[in-house]
Amino acid sequence: MTAATTPRQRLLTPGPTAVPPQVLAEMALPIIHHRTKQFQAIFAELGQQLQQIFCTKGPVLSIAGSGTTAFEAAQVSLVTPGSKAITVSGGKFGERWQDIYDAYASALGISQVKINCDWGTPAPVDQVAQALKDNPDASVVTIVHSETSTATMSDIKAIAALTAKSNALLIVDGITSVGAFECPMDEWGIDCLVTGSQKALMLPPGLGYVGLGERAVARLKQIDEKTPASFRGYNLDLRKWLKSHAKNDVPFTPPVSLIRAQKVACGLILEQGLPTVHAKTKKLAKATLAAFRALGLKLISSSPSYSVSGAYYPEGVDDSAFRKALRETHGIHIAGGQDGRGGKWSGKIFRISHMGFVDADDTRAALTAIETELRKAAAGQIKGEPGTAVKAFDAAY
Amino acid sequence: MTAATTPRQRLLTPGPTAVPPQVLAEMALPIIHHRTKQFQAIFAELGQQLQQIFCTKGPVLSIAGSGTTAFEAAQVSLVTPGSKAITVSGGKFGERWQDIYDAYASALGISQVKINCDWGTPAPVDQVAQALKDNPDASVVTIVHSETSTATMSDIKAIAALTAKSNALLIVDGITSVGAFECPMDEWGIDCLVTGSQKALMLPPGLGYVGLGERAVARLKQIDEKTPASFRGYNLDLRKWLKSHAKNDVPFTPPVSLIRAQKVACGLILEQGLPTVHAKTKKLAKATLAAFRALGLKLISSSPSYSVSGAYYPEGVDDSAFRKALRETHGIHIAGGQDGRGGKWSGKIFRISHMGFVDADDTRAALTAIETELRKAAAGQIKGEPGTAVKAFDAAY
Repeated sequence: MTAATTPRQRLLTPGPTAVPPQVLAEMALPIIHHRTKQFQAIFAELGQQLQQIFCTKGPVLSIAGSGTTAFEAAQVSLVTPGSKAITVSGGKFGERWQDIYDAYASALGISQVKINCDWGTPAPVDQVAQALKDNPDASVVTIVHSETSTATMSDIKAIAALTAKSNALLIVDGITSVGAFECPMDEWGIDCLVTGSQKALMLPPGLGYVGLGERAVARLKQIDEKTPASFRGYNLDLRKWLKSHAKNDVPFTPPVSLIRAQKVACGLILEQGLPTVHAKTKKLAKATLAAFRALGLKLISSSPSYSVSGAYYPEGVDDSAFRKALRETHGIHIAGGQDGRGGKWSGKIFRISHMGFVDADDTRAALTAIETELRKAAAGQIKGEPGTAVKAFDAAY
Repeated sequence: MTAATTPRQRLLTPGPTAVPPQVLAEMALPIIHHRTKQFQAIFAELGQQLQQIFCTKGPVLSIAGSGTTAFEAAQVSLVTPGSKAITVSGGKFGERWQDIYDAYASALGISQVKINCDWGTPAPVDQVAQALKDNPDASVVTIVHSETSTATMSDIKAIAALTAKSNALLIVDGITSVGAFECPMDEWGIDCLVTGSQKALMLPPGLGYVGLGERAVARLKQIDEKTPASFRGYNLDLRKWLKSHAKNDVPFTPPVSLIRAQKVACGLILEQGLPTVHAKTKKLAKATLAAFRALGLKLISSSPSYSVSGAYYPEGVDDSAFRKALRETHGIHIAGGQDGRGGKWSGKIFRISHMGFVDADDTRAALTAIETELRKAAAGQIKGEPGTAVKAFDAAY
């Protein structure tokens, strides 16, 4: 497959997302050693950029691995051994964070208070309030800001206001919110905010980031003093990362190329300004939803996220054939649905990303392709004249 | 710092090592999604290449993170809960693998039989034999093939012959041996062989690899059946990776750019042929040691590794000033010493790599710089006329 003989490829999957050419070019620079002043200067600057993007004065740790690696590290390191974890889930990723605490139940002596809401609906704030009241021995609450699998946004501000008054730390999966739309860590009182490199931060996958607020840093130190021998694994023990971070260092050989490229990508974000980037994502999402509605598609979420939009397929559309046609005929890459305990959405829905290096023209191209292929596969079920999607998009944008 | 105004930079640190331009260029290609046939084809080819480099018919898993991430995953996943681990150490990395099992002692109910040898000496085969005899309840033996911190090689073939007759699996840290010199996994009977991307495999850091022999695969399945609820963490649970690997997939978003670049780097190795690459590393090491001896330097190892060579500084040489002069005046990057429980080598030694994208000319450049700066810093203690190092190198090469 060569670029010359196929349509131009456009990646609108909700991670990995497209990477700007300046960032790709940085990855191709000769490798430098990580125990040098040159690397330390890069790493220090990246740390400051991430603080601006996370909207925090606290440290933001850079951890090699996926977003899951970073979130597992936060979960394992911040929960108090022998306590409870309140875990809120309304999709595939919320379920994953529950699975992780299940895996650690015996090692850490913890139990979970699981709050499960329907896929496509936001986290129930009142149930979280009640759970905090009923479980004063809960040491953490885990929650997903933008549940990628269901394109659903939850009200983190309201939930952070609850945890701030409790002993429980709030650990937020911001994997598809940080850098995409408002999630001001310190202002809202989020104790720990996690994201990955391959979403709004416009890098290939390979790095996860963990922002730590004052209460989280205090918790790490407190656990260390009170139960020095308590289990935390090794690589995932945030105490190690925090200690190194203070010296602009990491405990294990870092992905040097990704780190220097992340600095370039963060520079692009901050050059435009976070509010501008947020506004762009939001506009793309609102206009895309308008296009979906104009085609008569049913949205998958009652509380749509700004970073990813999803709709149900009309009857009779084969997900696999549909997305293959998008890729091969139009060069458009979007995502299908996923299966989990709370939903079986594989084959039933599709999702399109608004994060990072994607603009209105890319989105118009995607919507044109989607409309064209839906009209072929589900003739009669799609509203309006050909061109309806882009027309509605433009009207709303 | 720009390339035009400084000497050409040569990275001879024992990881990260220099990356060939073709591999760097591959990193700069537009990002592709990992749930596509295109990525699966790349991933499948990489899997086959790694099997050739590991000399195994078993699966070689690609894990996001550092070499430490991959080794921790192997340790945690393969030890039988409630059993013993025989852990052999003669340097910084051997000590790290002991620290990891210490961290998991309570979670996995395991204890360690630690065999510590002097830094700079190889693993004592007879002590391992005795430990296996004394501890029939040992389920794993961990050992380092090429201890990077001490530039020391151990006799893995002899140790694998012992473990093959026992119930214990042999987990080998091949982080600076795989791809650098002979470590034929299946022929020797190594059950699990681990390496990282940023050494002989000529990639930037960010990936670790775990090769699994038949007994290791059986152990993973056995643990699963016998103690399904036993603790294995989440990201580091090799059962997940093995299950995905069979479908040319990974359980979590992989570092796509690094993986496709690793395929290119492995292609370069296999194009030359593994024996040619091994012979080159060995020749560079032998000639470098000849140069060190000709200068009158004392070697740090009684059993030198082929991938990295080390020598003690003569009296009065300041490590930090010496390596700074190498970098700034000559563009040569080498490593100093490290501190651990068994040795305090920081400031006392230096090390130079022979792995991957480094040739005789790079090594001559490094030796010239080393000799020049040593003569400045320790006048009178360095043998021979100026030019002695390269002369001895050439004679031995």
